[in-house]
Amino acid sequence: MRLTQFTDYALRILIFAATHSDRLITIEQTADAYGISRNHLMKVANHLTREGYLKAVRGRSGGLTLAKPPAEIGLGVVIRTTEPDFAIVECFGEESSCRLTPSCRLKGIVGRALAAFLAEMDQYTLADLTVDPTQFGIERPAA
Amino acid sequence: MRLTQFTDYALRILIFAATHSDRLITIEQTADAYGISRNHLMKVANHLTREGYLKAVRGRSGGLTLAKPPAEIGLGVVIRTTEPDFAIVECFGEESSCRLTPSCRLKGIVGRALAAFLAEMDQYTLADLTVDPTQFGIERPAA
Repeated sequence: MRLTQFTDYALRILIFAATHSDRLITIEQTADAYGISRNHLMKVANHLTREGYLKAVRGRSGGLTLAKPPAEIGLGVVIRTTEPDFAIVECFGEESSCRLTPSCRLKGIVGRALAAFLAEMDQYTLADLTVDPTQFGIERPAA
Repeated sequence: MRLTQFTDYALRILIFAATHSDRLITIEQTADAYGISRNHLMKVANHLTREGYLKAVRGRSGGLTLAKPPAEIGLGVVIRTTEPDFAIVECFGEESSCRLTPSCRLKGIVGRALAAFLAEMDQYTLADLTVDPTQFGIERPAA
């Protein structure tokens, strides 16, 4: 069972931004800090900006910053926007071909398990994930 | 968030076997009933036999049957055997490269959410998933 890489990266950018809340961060710094692809991060950052979690400041010394306090960014809510379908088993997808779909109870059971998963994530916010900036190893001045 | 196809197929074989508990089932019948790959199903069936959920009867009129009553096959327990790592985010894997891993609380939080998911699955057994055989559409005599 896995969350998508998209969700993983979304949480990482948010953690990086929350940890450096005193300045703007850039995609490049975030990619370097985690050793991950800049292109993938860019798509995820755009999504988070559209969804109102990040704010983009344009210009030469621009960058990204949290659009609201970490304590107001619930982890369950973020994940619900980054996991497009939660098609945890095939019958959750719109193109399910399983002929049992109309009568099978699996979908309902897995649906309740998924709700339990998200309810637990709903207990936490980004404020619970903020780390000491030195944990990133690399410290750079803001671009 | 998805369970692996391996888990999906494991649950499907078990449902098919539980639904036809009066006779032996074959991989071919199961593959036909769901319209899925026979090769993939074979690997999953071997796993379920090794784990003691299915019993293989050899010979010309052989096949597979449940190794214990459906009510004794817990869904959470099955899933724990078919999902090899539950590496739901990158830091769960053994080769995590995220430099935050030692200090980040995400792993613990997602771990609790995962435990909530499995605790819910533990409430149910295969007996909750048995369907009316006519739901499979195709009815064949035992091989």
